Amino acid sequence: MLRRIRVHVAYDGTDFHGWQVQPGLVTIQGTLQDVVSDIEGSPVLVMASGRTDAGVHALEQVAAFTISNPIPLDNLRKAMNRLLPPSIRILRVCLVHEGFHPRYDAIAKTYEYRIWRGESCPPFEWRYLHHHPYPLRDAEMMDAAPLLEGEHDFSAFAASDERDEAGLSKVRTIYSSRIEKRGELLVYRVRGSGFLKHMVRNIAGTLLEVGKGNLTNDGLRAVVESRDRKLAGPTAPAKGLFLISVEYPEDS
Amino acid sequence: MLRRIRVHVAYDGTDFHGWQVQPGLVTIQGTLQDVVSDIEGSPVLVMASGRTDAGVHALEQVAAFTISNPIPLDNLRKAMNRLLPPSIRILRVCLVHEGFHPRYDAIAKTYEYRIWRGESCPPFEWRYLHHHPYPLRDAEMMDAAPLLEGEHDFSAFAASDERDEAGLSKVRTIYSSRIEKRGELLVYRVRGSGFLKHMVRNIAGTLLEVGKGNLTNDGLRAVVESRDRKLAGPTAPAKGLFLISVEYPEDS
Repeated sequence: MLRRIRVHVAYDGTDFHGWQVQPGLVTIQGTLQDVVSDIEGSPVLVMASGRTDAGVHALEQVAAFTISNPIPLDNLRKAMNRLLPPSIRILRVCLVHEGFHPRYDAIAKTYEYRIWRGESCPPFEWRYLHHHPYPLRDAEMMDAAPLLEGEHDFSAFAASDERDEAGLSKVRTIYSSRIEKRGELLVYRVRGSGFLKHMVRNIAGTLLEVGKGNLTNDGLRAVVESRDRKLAGPTAPAKGLFLISVEYPEDS
Repeated sequence: MLRRIRVHVAYDGTDFHGWQVQPGLVTIQGTLQDVVSDIEGSPVLVMASGRTDAGVHALEQVAAFTISNPIPLDNLRKAMNRLLPPSIRILRVCLVHEGFHPRYDAIAKTYEYRIWRGESCPPFEWRYLHHHPYPLRDAEMMDAAPLLEGEHDFSAFAASDERDEAGLSKVRTIYSSRIEKRGELLVYRVRGSGFLKHMVRNIAGTLLEVGKGNLTNDGLRAVVESRDRKLAGPTAPAKGLFLISVEYPEDS
């Protein structure tokens, strides 16, 4: 009997070329597919709630696959963790209905972008932080972040190379967009209905422009309204970005 | 004018073949010497409070070198951090008297050995923990740890290959030896006058034997008294070990 399985996965993206399988490169999807295919004894496709870029981390990504191997779920989790490298961990495994799709069924996602302001970045943390040891007007950044909340066309924050999605709507809803200070750490946390390619990193890069004094709150509003990628800030480095969680309707 | 400089260094030992320079291998000492020699414009020897093994980390190692370059200390720290890889960070730089020796002047050192007991090791922490997802009698380990306090001949916990120190005393004083539980983490913290090669890892490996029920408190006392390396537990893996701090007399 075929079973549809949902897995919750944490990973350190440092040594991977992102989520998506690419010939000749080590990716999260490729590594997971190898392990699940090994357990199943035949090739298995593993889909996620969305691709993460090279270097981006996940505290809790959600993926799904279909297998016929009757292995109990708890043993499946243990077997996967035994076969996977230590930088990818399966947190939870559960059975879902056969039509479950981790991307199309997701109703919200939360990301964090982490900026380290200290002069020196701790040697155990540099893989997980964007190091910015220069002055930042953090009060202005904290004021600006919530301006992105609501339903907007986020074309100004879409990857400029996003050709494959040309013609598709760039309208998304951000439920919450806040910056929090935790000592030397500045954490941008954003929860939304969905995100365009590079969108969170482009927003983080734009909020950094606010922090540097290059953009006012009115300027940020104008960037959103312009839908012009060239007016927003640069894409912030991948290693500061964490996918925190993916939400689904209660019954899926 | 020659200046004797003391630096406090943090490092992630994962990608280094330990502290000591070895031909053809990347080491902490070698990396620091390259950077200081680069700043000085001629070869400089960098000495530490002690060697750390391959894979061992340091929250605060102490090293020293002598240079003639008149660069202000604060700029020296910044220059070193700019030239060093992100896995080695200079925390502090200070001027010391010309005879300062980071090893012989040290009066105490503190190490921590970190054991992760959870079934799954967080993907962002595996480089810094010994993962032991099996039952451990932690109360017995916590009772046993202080038995090592005091002045003892620690031959039973010395590296079996420690030929170069044959004939030298293996007597050391441990001021404090305690195990603490922090959630899934078991932390063995030891402060002493000095430590033999592999000594903390051998003690950690022996305390793990206590936790597994293979050794009683009386048995541990007998191991210490035996001075026989074969009676102690195996050497615990390097990646769980952190050099926490090195202490010097107030005036050095």
